[in-house]
Amino acid sequence: MANREDHLLRTAWTADQAELPAHALRWLQAETGLTEVVTHPREARPTESTLTDKARDLLAEVVGDSYVLTSDEARLGRAGGLSYLDLLARYQPGLIPAPDAVVVPASPDEVTAVLRVCAEWGIAVIPFGGGTSVVGGVAAMRGDKESVIALDLVRLDRLVSVDPVSHLAVFEAGVRGPDAEKALAEHGFTLGHVPQSFERATIGGFAATRSAGQASSGYGRFEDMVEAVRVATPRGEWRLGVAPASAAGPDLRQLVVGSEGVLGVITEVTVRVRPLPEVRRYEGFVVDGWDRGVAVVRELAQRRVLADITRLSDMDETRVSFSLAGGLKTAALKGYLKARGIKEPCLLILGWEGRDRSATLKALQGAVRLGTPLGEVWRHGRFNGPRQRDALMAMGVCVETIETATHWSSLSQLRSAVRAALTRTLTAEGRKPIVMCHISHAYETGASLYFTAIVPRDLRDPMGQWKRAKKAASEAIAKLGTISHHHAVGVDHAPYLPGEIGDLGVEVLAAAKKVLDPTGILNPAKLLS
Amino acid sequence: MANREDHLLRTAWTADQAELPAHALRWLQAETGLTEVVTHPREARPTESTLTDKARDLLAEVVGDSYVLTSDEARLGRAGGLSYLDLLARYQPGLIPAPDAVVVPASPDEVTAVLRVCAEWGIAVIPFGGGTSVVGGVAAMRGDKESVIALDLVRLDRLVSVDPVSHLAVFEAGVRGPDAEKALAEHGFTLGHVPQSFERATIGGFAATRSAGQASSGYGRFEDMVEAVRVATPRGEWRLGVAPASAAGPDLRQLVVGSEGVLGVITEVTVRVRPLPEVRRYEGFVVDGWDRGVAVVRELAQRRVLADITRLSDMDETRVSFSLAGGLKTAALKGYLKARGIKEPCLLILGWEGRDRSATLKALQGAVRLGTPLGEVWRHGRFNGPRQRDALMAMGVCVETIETATHWSSLSQLRSAVRAALTRTLTAEGRKPIVMCHISHAYETGASLYFTAIVPRDLRDPMGQWKRAKKAASEAIAKLGTISHHHAVGVDHAPYLPGEIGDLGVEVLAAAKKVLDPTGILNPAKLLS
Repeated sequence: MANREDHLLRTAWTADQAELPAHALRWLQAETGLTEVVTHPREARPTESTLTDKARDLLAEVVGDSYVLTSDEARLGRAGGLSYLDLLARYQPGLIPAPDAVVVPASPDEVTAVLRVCAEWGIAVIPFGGGTSVVGGVAAMRGDKESVIALDLVRLDRLVSVDPVSHLAVFEAGVRGPDAEKALAEHGFTLGHVPQSFERATIGGFAATRSAGQASSGYGRFEDMVEAVRVATPRGEWRLGVAPASAAGPDLRQLVVGSEGVLGVITEVTVRVRPLPEVRRYEGFVVDGWDRGVAVVRELAQRRVLADITRLSDMDETRVSFSLAGGLKTAALKGYLKARGIKEPCLLILGWEGRDRSATLKALQGAVRLGTPLGEVWRHGRFNGPRQRDALMAMGVCVETIETATHWSSLSQLRSAVRAALTRTLTAEGRKPIVMCHISHAYETGASLYFTAIVPRDLRDPMGQWKRAKKAASEAIAKLGTISHHHAVGVDHAPYLPGEIGDLGVEVLAAAKKVLDPTGILNPAKLLS
Repeated sequence: MANREDHLLRTAWTADQAELPAHALRWLQAETGLTEVVTHPREARPTESTLTDKARDLLAEVVGDSYVLTSDEARLGRAGGLSYLDLLARYQPGLIPAPDAVVVPASPDEVTAVLRVCAEWGIAVIPFGGGTSVVGGVAAMRGDKESVIALDLVRLDRLVSVDPVSHLAVFEAGVRGPDAEKALAEHGFTLGHVPQSFERATIGGFAATRSAGQASSGYGRFEDMVEAVRVATPRGEWRLGVAPASAAGPDLRQLVVGSEGVLGVITEVTVRVRPLPEVRRYEGFVVDGWDRGVAVVRELAQRRVLADITRLSDMDETRVSFSLAGGLKTAALKGYLKARGIKEPCLLILGWEGRDRSATLKALQGAVRLGTPLGEVWRHGRFNGPRQRDALMAMGVCVETIETATHWSSLSQLRSAVRAALTRTLTAEGRKPIVMCHISHAYETGASLYFTAIVPRDLRDPMGQWKRAKKAASEAIAKLGTISHHHAVGVDHAPYLPGEIGDLGVEVLAAAKKVLDPTGILNPAKLLS
C-alpha cells in the first residue's frame, strides 16, 4: 500500500515539525521564562552492527538479501521510538543504541521463520511497526543476547479480507492507520481508530499496546475491536479468536493484546469494522470549571450518551489552546464567555461520527455551545501534537505527556496529585512549567487523564530534568490509577507494573513468556524488566 | 443475607420442578413418541469421606468446627452440578462421587488460609458457588490427590461497598443473583445480570465462568462488568484492576475471568452497576422465517440499537413455545399471523430496561408486533427452564441444552450443522427428537446459538444416548464456532479447548496454573484436562 522503499529507508527521526508561530513563542517566553534557544539535533551515528555474517546469511535466506538492512541509516531509523527522552538523545553527544540489522519479512510465515532462526542463534528481536512508542517500547535493547534485530513489519501491508456480513476485516500487522482506513473505505467501512499516532502507527502496534483512539468513546478501545489474532512465536504460530464472545476459558486474546512484542509478534489482526459514517460533526463547548466539566462528562458516560469523541480540557489546557491556536478571535471569545457567566472556561470537544446528536445534547447540562468552528480547529490539529512537540524541542523546550486513568471518585484527586508532582519537580529559578490536563476517554466507571508539561529545558541536565518529573508523576499515579491508559508499559513504566498487577501477575506473564519464547529473544527488557 | 443454615444443608438435587400441564405431556407424546414413563430419583448415597482427622482439624482451625461439614447430606449437596448427565446419575444405580468434606469459610482471608492448608496437605479444592454448572465444573474430582473438599463460598455474602459516583460495587463472591440485586436496589442500582441460573448462581461463579445474562445486549456480558477481582491462591492473595481501562500490559483480569476455579478462588469482585431502570418493558414480535429473523437482529446489532434483551427463536422453538405455553390463545394467534402473511413464525422477544425504545423500533423492519402480553409470558418463565427440565426428566425425557457463538456469516450454517448432528444421533425407532434453537446474545460481529433437544430417554443406555448426541454436536460446533458462549468449559468441553486456543494456549494456561497453584490442588480436571 505505502511506498515500501521509502519506508525501508526512512528514519523515525526525520524532521516533520510544525512551524511555531511567532506569537506562540512570545507567549511561551512570557509564561515559562523561556529564553530563545535554537538547538539542532547533531549528526547521529548508530552503534556498530554486531550481527555475524552467518546470522545475516540465514536471515537473508528467509526474507531475501535486500531485506536484511545493515546500513547506518536503516538501523538508525529503528533506534528507538518518539518519547521526549528518545528525541533528546539526538541533541546529546554519544552513539545512539541501534539494532544490528533491520529484517523486513514479507508474510506471517516469514516472520515465524525469522523467529526460528533468531531463537536458534540467540538473536534478540524487536518487533517494529510505526516506531511511535513513547515509553521505550522499541528501544534497541538486547538483554543477554549478543545481537538484536529490528523486525520491521512494513511489508505485512495487506488488507487480507473483508466479511461485509459480519463487519470484520483481516489486516496484516504492518498496515498503517491511514492505509487501513483507505482500504476499508473502498468497502464502505471504517475502523474508527484514531490515536494521535494514527498517521504512522500500525494495526499490529495498536494491538500490541492496547491503543485507544481519540474516538474511543464511540468506537471503543482497540482491544474492543480485536476479534482474532495471528501471532508468530519462536515455538510456531498461535491463532486465537473464533467468535465475538466466548466462555471457553480465560480470554487469551486479551493476553496477546498489550503484550508489547514480548510474547510473540502479532502478524494479523481480525478487527470489527463499522459502516463509514455519512456525517461527521465536531463541536466546541465550554463548561465552567474542571469539577463541573467532569460532572458533565460523567453524566454523559453513565447515561451512555457520550459523543463518539469526547474531550474535556482543564482550565490550563483551555487557556493554552486559546492562546496558541491560530485563527481564533480569542478576545471576542473571552468576552462572550464572560457575558455567559463562565469564570473558569474548560473546553469540551464533542464529535459525532454518524450517530444522532440529540441524546447527547439532551443530557448536556450547563455547557455553553460554541458550535462547529472550535470543533473544526480541534479536528484539523488532532494529529499535530507530535509535530508541535518537535518544533518546541528545537527551541530548547522540555515538552512531554503523561497519561493514566482511574475511577470517577478518584479523578480530581489524581489530577491534583500529578499536577503537583510535575509542577514541583519542573519549577526552578527562571523556569516555570505549564502543566495542563484533559480527559480524552470516558467510561461509565471512570476516565483517562492526559497531562502535558511544557518548561524551558534545563540545558545542564536535560535528561535528569524530565526523569525526575516523570518519576514523581508516576509515583503519584501508581497510588490512585493505572500506570498507563494507552501509552503502554515499554521500558519506562516497567518498574511500576508489579505494583499494579502484583508479583503474582508478573510471574504469570513471565511464565507465559517462557512457554512462547523459551530462550527469551523477544523484545528484551520491555514490559517485564 | 440468605438463610445460611438452609444453604449449608441444601442439596443441589432438591426437587424444585415445575408442574408439566397435561396438554403439554399429550403434545410431547404425539411429537416425540414418548410413552408415559414416570421415574423417580433413587435414594442417593455419596462416596465415603476420605478426609483424615488431622486435615479436618486443621481446616476447622481456620473456619471453625461447625463449618467443616462431613455429613452425607452436606457432601451430596455439592456432588456435582446440574447438567442432564449430573441429574441422570441420580436415576442410576451406584454411589454419587462426592467431596470428602464441605468447608465453609467466612471471609477472603479464610479462603486463602484454607488453600494454604490444602496445598500443604495435598487436598484438592473445588470452589463452590451456586452449584449450577452444566458442564461438570464442580464435579467432585480429586486429580492425583487423596482427598477433595468443596469450598462453599456461601458465607462470603456481603455487599462490601458501593461507590455511587463511579457506579461501582464490591461484592463478596458468594452473593447470589437475587441477593445482589436486592442489596444494590437499596442504593438505587442494578447489576442487570440475569442468566437462567440467576436464582442460585453467585457473583464469583459469574466471573469464574464468563457468564452472560439474558439482558447481555444491554448490560454486557459479566466479563464486561468486572472492574477488579480479588483472588485467593495457594501462593497468597492476588488483586487485579485499578481503573476502567488500562494499557499496563495484557489484561490479566481476563485471565482470571473464565478461569473456572483452576487458577485461584475469586473471593471479591468489583462490578460496574447502573441506576435502577424506571421502566421495564418486554414485547413479543414475530418475523417470517429464521433467515429473516437473523437479518433483523443483525441489523439492530450493527446499528447499535439492540434492545437490552434480544432473543430470537427459530420456527421449532416458536412452535414449541406456542404449544406448551399456558394462557396463550394459540389458534387465534396462528390465524392472526397467517392473515399477516407470516408463513414460518419465529418469535422475537425484545426487552427494554429504562432505555428508549424508539431507536430499536425504528430500525426493526419486517417484524409483526404482538405487544407486551407475549413479552410478559417470556418474562414470567425466564428462569423456569431448569424446573421444566426437572419435570420432563421425571417423565422419562432426555432434555438438555447446548450453546455456541459465531460470526454472522457462519451463523445459519452452524445452526444447520448442530441441528443435523442432534437430530441424527437422537432419532431412533420410536423416538423422534425435537431440536430447537434461539439467539439470545447478539453482537456487531455475530451471535450466540442456544439449542434445546428433547427426546424420549433411551432407558437401556440413557447416558450413552446423550453422550453420543453431545459429541456429534460438539464436533460440529468446533468447526465453525466457540465450544461455549456462556456455559464454560468444565469437564465436558475440556477435550475441545486445545482446538480452540491451540496447544500453545493450553500450555500458557498450564504455566499460569503452575505459578498460582504449584501443587495442583485447584479444581482438578476442569478446563485443562
